[in-house]
Amino acid sequence: MTAWTASGIWYLLKCARDGRLGPLSMPYAYPSNGSVVPAEDLRKWTAEIVRAVGTPKDIATDVALVLVAADLRGVASHGTARLPIYVSLIRSGVMDPRARPRRVGGKLSFVLFDGHNGWGFHAGRVVMDRAIASAKRTGLSASAIRGANHYGIAGWYAMRAARAGMIGISMTNTSPLVAPTRARVPMLGTNPIAFACPAGNFGLVVLDMATSTITWGRVEVAARRREDLPANVALDREGNPTRSPDEVLAGGLLLPLGGLEETAGYKGYGLALMVEILTGALAGANVGPWVQGFTSAAPSNLGQLFLAIDPGVIEPLAEFESRVERLVGAIKAAGAAMEGPDRVLIPGEPEAAREMEQALRGVVMDQEHVASLVALGDDLRTPFPRVQPFVPAPD
Amino acid sequence: MTAWTASGIWYLLKCARDGRLGPLSMPYAYPSNGSVVPAEDLRKWTAEIVRAVGTPKDIATDVALVLVAADLRGVASHGTARLPIYVSLIRSGVMDPRARPRRVGGKLSFVLFDGHNGWGFHAGRVVMDRAIASAKRTGLSASAIRGANHYGIAGWYAMRAARAGMIGISMTNTSPLVAPTRARVPMLGTNPIAFACPAGNFGLVVLDMATSTITWGRVEVAARRREDLPANVALDREGNPTRSPDEVLAGGLLLPLGGLEETAGYKGYGLALMVEILTGALAGANVGPWVQGFTSAAPSNLGQLFLAIDPGVIEPLAEFESRVERLVGAIKAAGAAMEGPDRVLIPGEPEAAREMEQALRGVVMDQEHVASLVALGDDLRTPFPRVQPFVPAPD
Repeated sequence: MTAWTASGIWYLLKCARDGRLGPLSMPYAYPSNGSVVPAEDLRKWTAEIVRAVGTPKDIATDVALVLVAADLRGVASHGTARLPIYVSLIRSGVMDPRARPRRVGGKLSFVLFDGHNGWGFHAGRVVMDRAIASAKRTGLSASAIRGANHYGIAGWYAMRAARAGMIGISMTNTSPLVAPTRARVPMLGTNPIAFACPAGNFGLVVLDMATSTITWGRVEVAARRREDLPANVALDREGNPTRSPDEVLAGGLLLPLGGLEETAGYKGYGLALMVEILTGALAGANVGPWVQGFTSAAPSNLGQLFLAIDPGVIEPLAEFESRVERLVGAIKAAGAAMEGPDRVLIPGEPEAAREMEQALRGVVMDQEHVASLVALGDDLRTPFPRVQPFVPAPD
Repeated sequence: MTAWTASGIWYLLKCARDGRLGPLSMPYAYPSNGSVVPAEDLRKWTAEIVRAVGTPKDIATDVALVLVAADLRGVASHGTARLPIYVSLIRSGVMDPRARPRRVGGKLSFVLFDGHNGWGFHAGRVVMDRAIASAKRTGLSASAIRGANHYGIAGWYAMRAARAGMIGISMTNTSPLVAPTRARVPMLGTNPIAFACPAGNFGLVVLDMATSTITWGRVEVAARRREDLPANVALDREGNPTRSPDEVLAGGLLLPLGGLEETAGYKGYGLALMVEILTGALAGANVGPWVQGFTSAAPSNLGQLFLAIDPGVIEPLAEFESRVERLVGAIKAAGAAMEGPDRVLIPGEPEAAREMEQALRGVVMDQEHVASLVALGDDLRTPFPRVQPFVPAPD
């Protein structure tokens, strides 16, 4: 493992430890001592780095697009901070930078691709675009893929459909960290479900959620701060519920959404299993306990599903949008306060606000993030772009 | 409201109060003092009752099929116990027993139907069958419906696809009982998600879950038993979390799956909103706070979505089934015990066991359930079939 790979992994851990994760949900809080880089500069540099390890230009463009989108939306753990790890996977021959997804089966509205162990971001973009184009003709279409790699934020692919005036859904399996209800070993990943659709004046509704209650990073934050976890979100290594983050980190596990059986954790387990079946099992990729971890020496062979529904085939899109807008408006008006930290949010609203901020001001990164990318750029003779100091707005 | 309608509603409430609900999930426990009626007799009688209020024969057959399936699977609250209420809705002109779903738009793989306020069970069966037949040709197909009524257990429609060798998904919106995260008024229903697929030697995987943590019935059980609720599953009328079932029943609300914001209740809220958009908003039915309650004087105008995926278009079905079987087998083997009350279950497993038991022994009903159906039969000059006393097996 090279120095900058280690630094990248370390950054991800530190990102959590330093509490730059929000209390639970995205986006991360801004760092107190950060740097700003224009999104376009970051995107261009990312594409150059990706090309420098043997990736064709069009594939590199997709990789940069999705990674920087995660940074823009404040999901720092899933953006360019992971670039050193991806480069390491390519250099060690675990991932193939040149591979393109190829269709291997299916019919008009449901097609299977093999990702041939290439970049997950590119494959995801290509096969979601196939679903979108196909849904324009048939009303509804899905692409499944096996031999896939990590594709960053699941929501990006759903949003791609939503921006084309459709309902988009995207799912992936991930390496096992979650115990099924009544079990005490990891059998399922945090298996995210992403859903997006246009919502008129409210922009997009974007649900992008792991089917576990909390993330591993949240456990690390709590350990660092010597805080208890919420009750019934994780197990210790003996399989007993614990609020001690140290006990979870010492060989423990996450509980599915809902927590224990008593509070309907079997529903989160059921959702995680549903995602596993709709991705790994349907596409013929690795499933459950056989899924490879992010830094494994073996290809991930993930399974993913991308689905697009065109509301425009039954009525003008504007009618669907106005119904969603009316529903969302009623929900937002249902809170005690319409403004301030306690106002009712719609899924994806905080990330969209962050994206607008950073599209104007530039992407804010903390010093460790910048340092790991500067080191990567030096190594690949592709200097990281000029950054400006970040001055947080006064509270 | 006639005597037997009131008795039907009362039965549903009592069903919960008596603790015949399982701790949280289905199926209900057997009554200690019950009666048994052969499933075929119950189905035939139910169809006769439904015909007696003006329903065409083929529609009545579907209604009886789905209602008795709920009873067989131990979901007593969604089966023939509701028959007196449906009959009342028809007699008061709220529901049209003769209406048939008609296609009103869409393309090859995504079609919209209008249920014209007819029986939900029949419309659901017809439009799911359309999705299944269409998916055979295109690999993936969905039917949406507006102007729909309650369709019983969402899982039945997903299982219909699974028994045809497909992956089935079914969703419906329901009347508002759930508060979005940070809100204090009901804006969303318990909006269930049902998923089913064939699982080889394990039969079917059947996930059929409300997107709220607990049901209203669970609150009633706790009130009756003077027990506290689990923490953070419901709110009092001021919108504060409470473990007192009495405070919830006095104008309170349910929290979405995950509970409070701290334990990721916003994910359950997001799932409920996703279902609302994929059903009510997509089909152009009522949405969110505008959905009519079960005993309202106005038509429900629910929206529903039925989706079928044919894994057979990409590989022989047996390969998909064997992958699901291997995954499920690994999960079931992951528990401390493979037998007994603590063994790891797969979604739908307890209901499938109950269905097999009752298909042989007959449907077990408690005395109040029997009495309400006997009264209904007398009223409609269609005597309820002969029952046998139910003798519970010794523990």
